[in-house]
Amino acid sequence: MVKYQQDELGRTFNALADPTRRAILARLESAPGLSVSQLAEPFPMQLNAVMKHLDVLSDAGLIARSKMGRTVSVELTPQPMADAMAWLQRYERFWSGSLDKLIAFVEAEET
Amino acid sequence: MVKYQQDELGRTFNALADPTRRAILARLESAPGLSVSQLAEPFPMQLNAVMKHLDVLSDAGLIARSKMGRTVSVELTPQPMADAMAWLQRYERFWSGSLDKLIAFVEAEET
Repeated sequence: MVKYQQDELGRTFNALADPTRRAILARLESAPGLSVSQLAEPFPMQLNAVMKHLDVLSDAGLIARSKMGRTVSVELTPQPMADAMAWLQRYERFWSGSLDKLIAFVEAEET
Repeated sequence: MVKYQQDELGRTFNALADPTRRAILARLESAPGLSVSQLAEPFPMQLNAVMKHLDVLSDAGLIARSKMGRTVSVELTPQPMADAMAWLQRYERFWSGSLDKLIAFVEAEET
């Protein structure tokens, strides 16, 4: 695996390590396009602290912010999660004992 | 989601955020039951630094160490990865919405 890919994955997993950041992503999943202040509303912290979490999520490529007038709205950009899941899938055979999945894994390794 | 679960997931994602720790897990996936010194061998760092990474992986429940005589051997205990994947699967619909997108993703992974 190339170094760049490692860094990408590292940023993704690091962004997902914080419960507030995971809660922000979960909120965006059910309510896409919220403004920053709407997004921050349920969290018991300063807006500034939420903004810092948004910076980490944005650096990891997990969200995109767009400005319209004075409102910044936030969208989920979940491609890095797909990459994280692809990384985890290598280990799936350990917990999903099914023969079909094991065969698929071995076949994928062989190609 | 209960707090305890959040902490578990946080520890898992944090453990996976480091490329050396991911490389250790990848090594254990292809060569289970390596001793600590065998495991540390390919990494360009002090044994002590590898031990610290093993502590993080162990605290996250991703590996188990067992001692036989003077040899400590390490096994993958991947259940936390299954939990991490279950968390990510909530977002799967964003990238696997259509078969075409899924095929494009797989093809991109293969190149």
